[in-house]
Amino acid sequence: MAKVVLYMSMSVDGFIAGPDDSEEHGLGVGGEVLHGWLADGGVDPASHRPPDEAGATVFDEVLATGAVITGRRTFDFAGGWAGDHHDGVPIFVLTRAAPPEPPPGSARYVTDIASCVAEAKAAAGDRDVLLHGAATAQECLRAGLLDEMQLSVVPVLLGRGRRLFADLPQVELSLVRVLDGPAVQHLGYRVER
Amino acid sequence: MAKVVLYMSMSVDGFIAGPDDSEEHGLGVGGEVLHGWLADGGVDPASHRPPDEAGATVFDEVLATGAVITGRRTFDFAGGWAGDHHDGVPIFVLTRAAPPEPPPGSARYVTDIASCVAEAKAAAGDRDVLLHGAATAQECLRAGLLDEMQLSVVPVLLGRGRRLFADLPQVELSLVRVLDGPAVQHLGYRVER
Repeated sequence: MAKVVLYMSMSVDGFIAGPDDSEEHGLGVGGEVLHGWLADGGVDPASHRPPDEAGATVFDEVLATGAVITGRRTFDFAGGWAGDHHDGVPIFVLTRAAPPEPPPGSARYVTDIASCVAEAKAAAGDRDVLLHGAATAQECLRAGLLDEMQLSVVPVLLGRGRRLFADLPQVELSLVRVLDGPAVQHLGYRVER
Repeated sequence: MAKVVLYMSMSVDGFIAGPDDSEEHGLGVGGEVLHGWLADGGVDPASHRPPDEAGATVFDEVLATGAVITGRRTFDFAGGWAGDHHDGVPIFVLTRAAPPEPPPGSARYVTDIASCVAEAKAAAGDRDVLLHGAATAQECLRAGLLDEMQLSVVPVLLGRGRRLFADLPQVELSLVRVLDGPAVQHLGYRVER
């Protein structure tokens, strides 16, 4: 049964982007440091595979997922990944209002978090579902639909920007895995219900 | 040379207290879980020593510090520790305006962060200075006066409450120690300048 797993890089003070994030600067001012544990690569997603074992483990998990759920902001900032996040798996883009033009490639717009998760799980089969984006993570947590979080905690205080967690109910977690990278810690939490 | 070290228990979403924290409920609604790694004890601070090695290591460090810097809120919520946080070491209480009555025991009010840190370091001699409290930590970070942070990260999303980090400049950190407790992770960061 597919699990919905949030993968995000986060500063110690809880930001996933610095201030003034935009389509040109998706990670905001000073936020590039959050992706410092990934390799400098090109268009091919696999070219960003980190050289260290901890980072590579997390990276490989992301690319082994069978469907992607993402928010509209993340999707647009990433240019919709030209319609292919990895291996052509279906991309479900949560949005308040779907634009008239269909999204590129294997992406589709969904306006309801519950059906979004149900469709992504069905599409992923026995693989996990990758969840990406702060607003969508929060919607999933509020709806009780998130199964795990894999947080790559980067040793920096960004100070300002976009927070991963805000205005949530209290949610119990269990720490299920710790992977220590050269600078970044990858913390895996199960969401308890 | 004394280092100024922030010791705080924090939820995964960055809160050091739940909502509606008050003198009666210093950790706010649902915030007691943040101190779950400490032993249930009595008035004697040492009675809260955790049974596990990781927790005990952090706890012993706190009680080995030679001076305490705390904010007025934390100080008042704790009843001023009756004037003795541990071993009678000096307590420097950062406040905007010192009340007319002197604080109890080894405590004194200080209104300026720079002289507060200088006096605490002098008082601590070759021991470290314990810093406690969110607002004071932020003032110290803004002033470039914090040397280390020891964050005990508790596997819970509190959702709402009092954040440890807010409205800061960007600050580079180095992860210098990881201690895995049974449920809590104790992460040590050096503040880079």
